[in-house]
Amino acid sequence: MEGGPPAAAAAREPHVAGAGAGRFLLLAALIATTTSAILPGAKSACPRDNSLVKDISQMHQSNYGREGFSHITVAGALAHGMKEVELWLQTFGPGQRTPIHRHSCEEVFVVLKGKGTLLLGSGSLKYPGEPQAIPVFQNSTFSVPVNDPHQVNENMVFLIFKNFECCRFVYDDWSMPHVAAKLKFPYFWDEDCLPAPKDEL
Amino acid sequence: MEGGPPAAAAAREPHVAGAGAGRFLLLAALIATTTSAILPGAKSACPRDNSLVKDISQMHQSNYGREGFSHITVAGALAHGMKEVELWLQTFGPGQRTPIHRHSCEEVFVVLKGKGTLLLGSGSLKYPGEPQAIPVFQNSTFSVPVNDPHQVNENMVFLIFKNFECCRFVYDDWSMPHVAAKLKFPYFWDEDCLPAPKDEL
Repeated sequence: MEGGPPAAAAAREPHVAGAGAGRFLLLAALIATTTSAILPGAKSACPRDNSLVKDISQMHQSNYGREGFSHITVAGALAHGMKEVELWLQTFGPGQRTPIHRHSCEEVFVVLKGKGTLLLGSGSLKYPGEPQAIPVFQNSTFSVPVNDPHQVNENMVFLIFKNFECCRFVYDDWSMPHVAAKLKFPYFWDEDCLPAPKDEL
Repeated sequence: MEGGPPAAAAAREPHVAGAGAGRFLLLAALIATTTSAILPGAKSACPRDNSLVKDISQMHQSNYGREGFSHITVAGALAHGMKEVELWLQTFGPGQRTPIHRHSCEEVFVVLKGKGTLLLGSGSLKYPGEPQAIPVFQNSTFSVPVNDPHQVNENMVFLIFKNFECCRFVYDDWSMPHVAAKLKFPYFWDEDCLPAPKDEL
């Protein structure tokens, strides 16, 4: 997830999400701080952890050089040996956004805190086109259709669940042809986890 | 998830999970009520919903006849057309527990509230054997290894994320041979979502 302009950290107050009487009330909040100074040097190492139960608040997190952004790989292929699914916890401060991108797998988002916008282009034209702007909010969930170009922005904390074999293609803008979108591999948080390339003999 | 003895609803107060200074603080809570009288008749219908963004607090939930239990399919194959992954939100009141079971896929748990125990048997013996008892707690995450028999119990609210093509086998007890465990299909919450069988001709 590439950042937009520098932004303040995500909101710091827990908030209660309302719900109808007699139904579940989901109350979720996350306090984020800017994180660039938290784990000096940690960005250069893969945060491998094979323990069965992990305290999420103690897991490796980083802003990967983007102010107002934070990422934790809660369950990952390279860091934790997952073979089928991955789970990330991310914070986007105000003004932060993902790049415009599509991917070859399903993703499910759960917004724990904040609100923002899902911008959703078309996967059936030759380029994404003018995107729909769809509000998302605390305690909402959404799933982006496979291969539909999209961008998630603004001020949110969310969990992202995905198939681990997922290729991600990034666009410069909404008029860039699908075939020109660039494969982003590995993700920023996996760069230090890849095995060293073997010598070519 | 089959229930244990009747139990009170999950705890009703939001709670703050502590974390180290300068780190993420994940604050998550869920207010549960017993749900048997909430949606009369709703258990007999598949809660299909194709809207792109869903308010989790308004989604169909039920205790499926088990006091102190609640299930919401946040993203499901049969209810929402997911093809790769599924996401459930479940509450187990005090004393509630899953059956002893194993499955053919990875599952990732995120405990939003409460605490409990993961009982984990062996998938490499001929039967599960005496399980390890592993504490799990609010703001923790764990992934059960594929095909390891396990049981999750006690007083928790959690998200479960899994591959959607997942077969689940249920044991009577920890000494039951793996080959005798029974396939549970469909899950309780999917029973009303299956298409009617076609005539055999």
